[in-house]
Amino acid sequence: MSFKPKTINFAFALHNHQPVGNFEGVFEEAYRSAYLPFLEVLEAHPKIKMTLHYTGILFDWLAKRRPEFVLRLKQLVERGQLELMTGGFYEPIFPSIPDRDKLGQIKKLTNFVKEKTGYEAKGMWLAERVWEPYLPKPICEAGVKYVLIDDEHFKLVGMSENELHGAYVTEEQGYPVTIFPIDMKLRYLIPFRMVHETIDYLRSLATDDGKRIAVMADDGEKFGSWPGTYNSVYGERWLENFFTALEQNSDWIRTTTFSEYLNKYPPIGRVYLPTASYAEMMEWALPPSRGIEYANALREIKNRGLESSVGKFFRGGFWRFFFVKYPESNNMNKKMLLVSEKVRRLGEISREMVLAKEGDKGVKEHEELVEKAKDELWQGQCNCPYWHGVFGGLYINYLRNAIYQHLIEAENIADRYFHNSKPFIEVAMTDYDLDGLEEALISSDMLNTYFDIDYGGSICELDYRPKAFNLTNVLTRRQEPYHVGMRESARGMKEADLERYLKYDWYRRSSLLDHFFNTDTQLDQFQDAAYPERGDFVNQPYKISKPNMESDFVALRLYREGGVWQGTDFLPIKVEKIVKMQKGLGKIEFEYTIENTSWKRLDAEFGIEFNLTFLAGNAPDRYYYSQDAGTQIHDKMLNSKGITWNTRNIGMKDEYLGMDLGLSWDKEGTCWRFPIETVSQSEGGFERAYQGSSIMPHWQVDIEPNSKWKMKLLLEIKEIKK
Amino acid sequence: MSFKPKTINFAFALHNHQPVGNFEGVFEEAYRSAYLPFLEVLEAHPKIKMTLHYTGILFDWLAKRRPEFVLRLKQLVERGQLELMTGGFYEPIFPSIPDRDKLGQIKKLTNFVKEKTGYEAKGMWLAERVWEPYLPKPICEAGVKYVLIDDEHFKLVGMSENELHGAYVTEEQGYPVTIFPIDMKLRYLIPFRMVHETIDYLRSLATDDGKRIAVMADDGEKFGSWPGTYNSVYGERWLENFFTALEQNSDWIRTTTFSEYLNKYPPIGRVYLPTASYAEMMEWALPPSRGIEYANALREIKNRGLESSVGKFFRGGFWRFFFVKYPESNNMNKKMLLVSEKVRRLGEISREMVLAKEGDKGVKEHEELVEKAKDELWQGQCNCPYWHGVFGGLYINYLRNAIYQHLIEAENIADRYFHNSKPFIEVAMTDYDLDGLEEALISSDMLNTYFDIDYGGSICELDYRPKAFNLTNVLTRRQEPYHVGMRESARGMKEADLERYLKYDWYRRSSLLDHFFNTDTQLDQFQDAAYPERGDFVNQPYKISKPNMESDFVALRLYREGGVWQGTDFLPIKVEKIVKMQKGLGKIEFEYTIENTSWKRLDAEFGIEFNLTFLAGNAPDRYYYSQDAGTQIHDKMLNSKGITWNTRNIGMKDEYLGMDLGLSWDKEGTCWRFPIETVSQSEGGFERAYQGSSIMPHWQVDIEPNSKWKMKLLLEIKEIKK
Repeated sequence: MSFKPKTINFAFALHNHQPVGNFEGVFEEAYRSAYLPFLEVLEAHPKIKMTLHYTGILFDWLAKRRPEFVLRLKQLVERGQLELMTGGFYEPIFPSIPDRDKLGQIKKLTNFVKEKTGYEAKGMWLAERVWEPYLPKPICEAGVKYVLIDDEHFKLVGMSENELHGAYVTEEQGYPVTIFPIDMKLRYLIPFRMVHETIDYLRSLATDDGKRIAVMADDGEKFGSWPGTYNSVYGERWLENFFTALEQNSDWIRTTTFSEYLNKYPPIGRVYLPTASYAEMMEWALPPSRGIEYANALREIKNRGLESSVGKFFRGGFWRFFFVKYPESNNMNKKMLLVSEKVRRLGEISREMVLAKEGDKGVKEHEELVEKAKDELWQGQCNCPYWHGVFGGLYINYLRNAIYQHLIEAENIADRYFHNSKPFIEVAMTDYDLDGLEEALISSDMLNTYFDIDYGGSICELDYRPKAFNLTNVLTRRQEPYHVGMRESARGMKEADLERYLKYDWYRRSSLLDHFFNTDTQLDQFQDAAYPERGDFVNQPYKISKPNMESDFVALRLYREGGVWQGTDFLPIKVEKIVKMQKGLGKIEFEYTIENTSWKRLDAEFGIEFNLTFLAGNAPDRYYYSQDAGTQIHDKMLNSKGITWNTRNIGMKDEYLGMDLGLSWDKEGTCWRFPIETVSQSEGGFERAYQGSSIMPHWQVDIEPNSKWKMKLLLEIKEIKK
Repeated sequence: MSFKPKTINFAFALHNHQPVGNFEGVFEEAYRSAYLPFLEVLEAHPKIKMTLHYTGILFDWLAKRRPEFVLRLKQLVERGQLELMTGGFYEPIFPSIPDRDKLGQIKKLTNFVKEKTGYEAKGMWLAERVWEPYLPKPICEAGVKYVLIDDEHFKLVGMSENELHGAYVTEEQGYPVTIFPIDMKLRYLIPFRMVHETIDYLRSLATDDGKRIAVMADDGEKFGSWPGTYNSVYGERWLENFFTALEQNSDWIRTTTFSEYLNKYPPIGRVYLPTASYAEMMEWALPPSRGIEYANALREIKNRGLESSVGKFFRGGFWRFFFVKYPESNNMNKKMLLVSEKVRRLGEISREMVLAKEGDKGVKEHEELVEKAKDELWQGQCNCPYWHGVFGGLYINYLRNAIYQHLIEAENIADRYFHNSKPFIEVAMTDYDLDGLEEALISSDMLNTYFDIDYGGSICELDYRPKAFNLTNVLTRRQEPYHVGMRESARGMKEADLERYLKYDWYRRSSLLDHFFNTDTQLDQFQDAAYPERGDFVNQPYKISKPNMESDFVALRLYREGGVWQGTDFLPIKVEKIVKMQKGLGKIEFEYTIENTSWKRLDAEFGIEFNLTFLAGNAPDRYYYSQDAGTQIHDKMLNSKGITWNTRNIGMKDEYLGMDLGLSWDKEGTCWRFPIETVSQSEGGFERAYQGSSIMPHWQVDIEPNSKWKMKLLLEIKEIKK
């Protein structure tokens, strides 16, 4: 009997991704430092089989900018060395998007990969490994055979280490999909530890029957693009050495693709996995105070040596809670749902109807229109700015902006079709953000203006549709668990004294917020959200009258019978704001009436806060100006100071995008303007980020009992020459 | 300013349920001890508003057997004192059934409640509070506005106690549903602690604005039907005192229904909840060894006082894992999916087709047929026997049997229609149990015989369709976490020495299992699964040839090239079994060939094990007999001993249901028969339960090298007079 070594199958998969809206230079840099050198090493080792995933965003970039790279992938596929995976084209978090978009996004990438390389992808990459047990149904319907998921998820249901080296079947309503558990140890070994440690670990997994599979799957950017890895992986030749070691041990380590493995070995069992993602993600999804408790409890478990007893039942939160934690993320998600519904309606207009109306040519054009609308919608589903942890991009304003750009573009396509490209205006009372209360959504060919009636009668979204731009895309300043340790750890701060920017807002930085405060309140107090608010209007419920809707005109009446503190008296005060919009115009008129229904004279400063953004805090082509009060001023990032103008108007000009937003009012007042800046964590350390600017005209209002104060305010957006 | 007390809304909801297949006497008893006396106390306190849920099973029983009770409910509804809830008519675990059945079951109960009481139910009871984040879509589509869920679920995402006294909105793909968190403290106080403790607790929750709601929701059986509660709740007048106390404090405790509350107060926020159920359920869903570790870890947390730090991140498994933990539960669930698909096909036969074929009358008949099939299918989705903890009924054979009865009945209706009520036979190769491997399913008008090819070429389901009876519905003996402590805790044992029945099977007790063992192996060793198995056939993969399928006849050839230990030699042995079935007949023929492909003579005992059940171990009308070997014998529960017959046949007769199952073979052999009994936990303590009987004819086979041993075996089921 001859000696037969124990053997193991080894599947090595990399996921390569760049978010929608990222800068060209970042793509270039990742290509040069990671994607290209990795491929070169792989080509030099024709016996090493592996699996690669490129999100549609990146694959499309490669096909356009580096077609020779895609040809090289094709060759590797053709010689049987490489398997390619599909996934959501624009890398959405699957549980957060409608089923029709799940299917559409997967099929789009599968078709794209097929077109570019001839390969019919069977497996899919699950964005951020955010799993829910319902997913097998849409995934299976999209033609996916297998998916890779962290072994962490398997441990949550009580499975043990030695059960996690094979394929499993799971299902929803009878729709099956095969799952491979990703080995966490391999994710920590590759490419960070010595090559032989991986070989040793694989040896510990090898068996006589050789049926097992060890799965390594992780981000491709860890191979060259992460800080320090270009040098270790290519300079010090980690990857070259690793592949050589695999070749030298090819008598017992069988590198394999997932499809090849599945052709040989059937699944070893059935499994059901709960809602989960990788452990860090589940920690980040917790509310901030709970996040701090989580870190403390984890430390407690380690200090007391309870990892193996208590630790295995310890876990964090739930991905979708990001929509509770960050209302801005929720608003993006719900805007996406609203747009997805419009795109669905556009797509379901029947061929017969289009044919009758527009003829044969019209049918083809309509199909193209629908495809274009879907593509814009799907770009607006890219996961990165919907969440935040270390990697998530919620704090990155241009990534959020990219989402809105694409969503509004998709909406424009649909609305133009529905309204025959003519000016229109409409209003809908609907629970758009899904909090159980109705919002008022006014949409015209020029603007979308969404009123959160129950939150101060505020504007939670203002889109300038000709530029597909959401002007109110400003992130509120909130505590993050990592702020706590910042003062101590000077490590990784991108500028000194960052902690002085740790100001937290007690209300959401949306627009049309009604403030009452003391006349001696200082700008910097207001900027720091550390001033006495005397009214109860800012974030409290307004009421709305039945909207006045004409064919070319909409008027809303929002009002609140609230109160304002004056000394120890709480004076009953009524604020009414009438909003008027017309089709074809980028204008909103606001008519304010403050009525003193109390027994005393009201002496207070009244302000209307807008939080608006053109994304850049100190770009030469984006600036503020006032016709009355002075010349233009840039939002100086370096000192973050606000400015005060005595004026009847203020404007924001964006010469880069070609927009000019003007605010003017009919009573002389004072206007404050200051930047909203957040402090957040990223791969490179802590950093300050410009989110937008707070603009607040305000007036000293002295109102006698049973008297009224009235003021008109106009917001106007115009296109200007770039 | 007059004194205004802090106030609180209090919603009190009870869920009342009896499983499909439960005995009439149990319904009667629960009615007398719980449902009726509760209603009487409620009627006597017309100012107490509350909410009640009766599952369709129970509501239907009440409407038929106690119509006056339903009238009294109607009166309470009409005077605005009572809100009724809907839910799944037959109380299914929602995530485990297809969407169309979720909708159908909810609408059926909503319609039933409307018909009987005139009330349009707005809220639903979620069976076992098994929540998954996908549920809002089907629930909302079924017209449900709100659902009650344990506050536990809210804490899992990081919410704190003081956020849990209001309504929340959640959504899936834009479909919203309102959730009320159930207060766990109230579940422990009511009706187990002194009345004033509940009042005190409510006082601690009351606020100036009075907007909060405290939700108590639990099983109605805790009010009279649980051990000891009849005396405490009615004898000692706990409920009377409680309602009186609520009335006396009605200036600040406002009893309310959920709908009334929602009309006054909007939801206080948005929430997303992960997969979850109540904490105990999540513990029970863990694999047994992990369940023990869970209990130990929980004790560790308590001993070290870590409840508030580590404890809040501590949690158990996932409900669907019961399908992994108990293959029998999985088989029921997957049979249900298969039948649901047949019923869907039946329902989707178009009106036009039926009209053309059968005329107007036919359309109405077809509609009734579809409704009947759906009703049977939905009964087969009742949750109780699909899981096990303290309450789950997986171990209760008549509850599992009820599931199969209804599923097979639904299948019979569909198949009769598809085959024009004529005899038929067909075979399907399909991954029926969703483990990634194909099974062979033979279905005729008389039998369903499902072969798990990869598990010993065994029979995992054998249905006698004229009686809608699954004969192989036998539960394998497995370790449960509570077995560990049994020896110490004599508490709650329903008979002495129960621990001697703690035998665990190393293979699943299905049928047509091929054993090789020593001739001197004793029956009791085999019964205890503590004998040396010499072959590798029992639970190992067989292969299958392409089935031979004629219009009235199916033949399968299953074979395995395995081996049998003989001393230190592992002899290569081939087992082949040819299976033959004909339409119109309740017969299966098995032709066995064992081929010795080794160099040595094989000396062994070869046995073919069947595990079959007629549910009762010692009923006078259910017994075993052998025409050759002796007279009838009952399965004596009291000593659980097996018997040995030297015979060519054995039969099982069920005079209660009217079935006679005979097994006969063409070579004189020995037949073992013994009961499979499990030890499980229930509300009342530990108990032994008869699951079925193992029947194993076996033969001494002495096969020379390159020789074969052949044997024919016949299984035949006949209807007999009851």
